Amino acid sequence: MSLEIPEVVINRLPVYARALTELAQRGESVVSSQALGELLDVTPAQIRKDLSYFGRFGKQGRGYNVNGLLSTLREILGIDRQWRLCLVGVGRLGQAIAEYGGFGPQGFEIVAAFDANPELIGQEIGGSPVHPIEDLERYLHSHRVDIGIVAVPAPAAQSVVDKLVAGGIHAILNYAPITAHVPRDVVIRHIDPVLAMQSMTFYIKRGEPGGK
Amino acid sequence: MSLEIPEVVINRLPVYARALTELAQRGESVVSSQALGELLDVTPAQIRKDLSYFGRFGKQGRGYNVNGLLSTLREILGIDRQWRLCLVGVGRLGQAIAEYGGFGPQGFEIVAAFDANPELIGQEIGGSPVHPIEDLERYLHSHRVDIGIVAVPAPAAQSVVDKLVAGGIHAILNYAPITAHVPRDVVIRHIDPVLAMQSMTFYIKRGEPGGK
Repeated sequence: MSLEIPEVVINRLPVYARALTELAQRGESVVSSQALGELLDVTPAQIRKDLSYFGRFGKQGRGYNVNGLLSTLREILGIDRQWRLCLVGVGRLGQAIAEYGGFGPQGFEIVAAFDANPELIGQEIGGSPVHPIEDLERYLHSHRVDIGIVAVPAPAAQSVVDKLVAGGIHAILNYAPITAHVPRDVVIRHIDPVLAMQSMTFYIKRGEPGGK
Repeated sequence: MSLEIPEVVINRLPVYARALTELAQRGESVVSSQALGELLDVTPAQIRKDLSYFGRFGKQGRGYNVNGLLSTLREILGIDRQWRLCLVGVGRLGQAIAEYGGFGPQGFEIVAAFDANPELIGQEIGGSPVHPIEDLERYLHSHRVDIGIVAVPAPAAQSVVDKLVAGGIHAILNYAPITAHVPRDVVIRHIDPVLAMQSMTFYIKRGEPGGK
């Protein structure tokens, strides 16, 4: 894993790419760091600094070429490709993930699902066949899968993460409310609405000192 | 909104609180910053620095009192209280959110849901009655709601955010794939699995320079 570019910078690039996609769809050909910053509620200086890690874009006072910067960012991030996902856990949450319409158009395809519940095995969920969880590692050794999605209950999550890693997966999207451990060459992102809300209550509690 | 404590620090505190909860449940009474760091894959120095914003905890070489630190963190974050949520958008995603079992035990209760689809109005979803979206602002003015959850399609999301803000909401959890704009006294968190995956593909692309 590269260490020279801060992870927070990498995390912001997809947001820039999404905004540029929208500008391109509106037919805009040039955007200033000022205008892009206003769209995204970040400072123009931050945008210029983030992009400077990847070379020189735009000219002072002339703005960025929307399509040029977009295709460079897409290539840097690898979002110009198709990525194959496996989904582990197809309970209520996993089913909602499998049926979510937002992955496909962005190049993310769920190719297989896994669950421990025998009643679900063999069903199709969101177009993916459900396999027994015992087959996960074997499946990963014989099929190309780029990203594993973990949507099992908390007590089972670390063991699923370990199986994904053992199967050669290097990127994991974890919906289970645990801090999962992975080796240094595996990248993991957590989707956790409770933690997100708990980081907001700090602010609303302070904003309203007397409570309501 | 307070500026003196970096937002990244606030965002890490709920993770510390979750780990301490687990330690307390296992009956541990003391934990070192070393051991806590290993649980969470962060350095002991970072934990000590993060906590130093809030006073002095633990003694050099003696570790932290698990229950004491936990209750302090819960109070700092406001997660020792009950919080009332409204959910806007009860399509597939909104229904999964409404039925998610992880909110209640953490003190987050969805008290009302809203949707633009007339067929859903009056139904109960996850135990919450569905109101017409037109009633959102009026509802917020006459009921206490602390956090608004946005689960509508992207094109409708900014207008829903604006309605929540107009209704006096100061904390928003946004599931729509847009960068929503809010006034400076409103805090917003985005839940976006596509952005999370796009920030990982950068690493797996680089890890496998030849592609697969």
